Amino acid sequence: MDSLRFTAETSSNGVVERDFTVGEVPGVLWSPASGSEHAPLVLMGHGGGRDKRAPGMAGRAHRIVTGCGFTVATIDAPGHGDRPRTPHDEQEIAALLRARAAGEPEGPIVVRYNAHLAEQAVPEWQATLDALQELPEIGAGGPVGYFGLNMATAIGVPLAAAEPRITAAVFGLHWPDRLAEPASRITIPIEFDLQWHDQHIDRQAGLALFDAFASKEKTLHANAGTHKELPRFEADCAAHFFTRHLTPPA
Amino acid sequence: MDSLRFTAETSSNGVVERDFTVGEVPGVLWSPASGSEHAPLVLMGHGGGRDKRAPGMAGRAHRIVTGCGFTVATIDAPGHGDRPRTPHDEQEIAALLRARAAGEPEGPIVVRYNAHLAEQAVPEWQATLDALQELPEIGAGGPVGYFGLNMATAIGVPLAAAEPRITAAVFGLHWPDRLAEPASRITIPIEFDLQWHDQHIDRQAGLALFDAFASKEKTLHANAGTHKELPRFEADCAAHFFTRHLTPPA
Repeated sequence: MDSLRFTAETSSNGVVERDFTVGEVPGVLWSPASGSEHAPLVLMGHGGGRDKRAPGMAGRAHRIVTGCGFTVATIDAPGHGDRPRTPHDEQEIAALLRARAAGEPEGPIVVRYNAHLAEQAVPEWQATLDALQELPEIGAGGPVGYFGLNMATAIGVPLAAAEPRITAAVFGLHWPDRLAEPASRITIPIEFDLQWHDQHIDRQAGLALFDAFASKEKTLHANAGTHKELPRFEADCAAHFFTRHLTPPA
Repeated sequence: MDSLRFTAETSSNGVVERDFTVGEVPGVLWSPASGSEHAPLVLMGHGGGRDKRAPGMAGRAHRIVTGCGFTVATIDAPGHGDRPRTPHDEQEIAALLRARAAGEPEGPIVVRYNAHLAEQAVPEWQATLDALQELPEIGAGGPVGYFGLNMATAIGVPLAAAEPRITAAVFGLHWPDRLAEPASRITIPIEFDLQWHDQHIDRQAGLALFDAFASKEKTLHANAGTHKELPRFEADCAAHFFTRHLTPPA
């Protein structure tokens, strides 16, 4: 198994930020400057075309580290951020841009490309989690959450279905086509974000993915607005959700 | 206009609790023991068959007073709590109990009875708000929210449609039949609770009421579970919602 190597470290506003690699996969670990010993861990995935350091990622990470006292890890998805694109990546991105320019539905392309990426990304997340839990400050057996919307839901749903160490997850903003089946095997608490006026994802399709989770505790947060108008306060809701489910009993 | 008369006062855990009447209508006012001067005000309605002092009311009131520093007012709905029942109330309650015993749908009876109660309750809430804003500690022009589920949504939706002083509201758990029209005239921020496996309110009917609000900012919180299984953490979500919308700019 690949172990985790730290490659850089900075610190600001009570948050320590460390770049790392696990094998070929680069990531960022955000931890509280103090009291991070055996803190709960949140794995955070980025959306399509973004990367581990996108402003939304750093913002949510800081919110969870300072608000919950947890540690947050992100990695670049295959073909994203500091990772090379394959000819297949280039081909699918070109198909998406063509569809967008022609005003054709993006869903069929995004669904199949994200499903392809998830096949590679799920074992990468599992190897990253293995390596993170080898760190003495994290350790094995502690609470682990997953937070990922858009493409990170396409990766996170099969990941959470396969990975019993993940015990709570925030998902959302995706089609049900390839995800309803793994979702039906998920029983951990779920918070699910949906945009009520999403121009890409049909409302009933979005609701169908929420419906598919077998979880006894699951909450849908549906907000007025289009695909990219998810309100910022949902990051606070996610932090409250993780606090509720990952905080060890006193 | 009827002015507000305080009839009793107790205090516990930093919360002052005062019984009051406005005309024939009895209510309870919960305020922070200190710093309540011109605090935002949340009007809180109770569900059918309950009253101003139901445990859920007191619990939510304490949560909002201590968590947000706001003042909370509840009143008994017509025919509820300390208020007399009319022959019409008795008749409708008997009809509801018969339907329940026979396993018949409760919706049609609850919808028509709640609409009837709302006709009386809306002006009562407005008179109560007039009287509350006459108190020097509350004053006129401050932020006002409304929090009410079930029957308190049947009363609160026409109230918020008629009352421009209410600037944010939490509703939920009701049929759209009589409420979609007033909801379509409401533009203030809304949080809306729905139970995903509600045995009384059809899922599409519940979603239709959320859809009806004209608000640019509205959030649906749909939780797994039956009608009475609304999770307790939704009271925290409501408190965060009111903090976001009623806290005056610093």
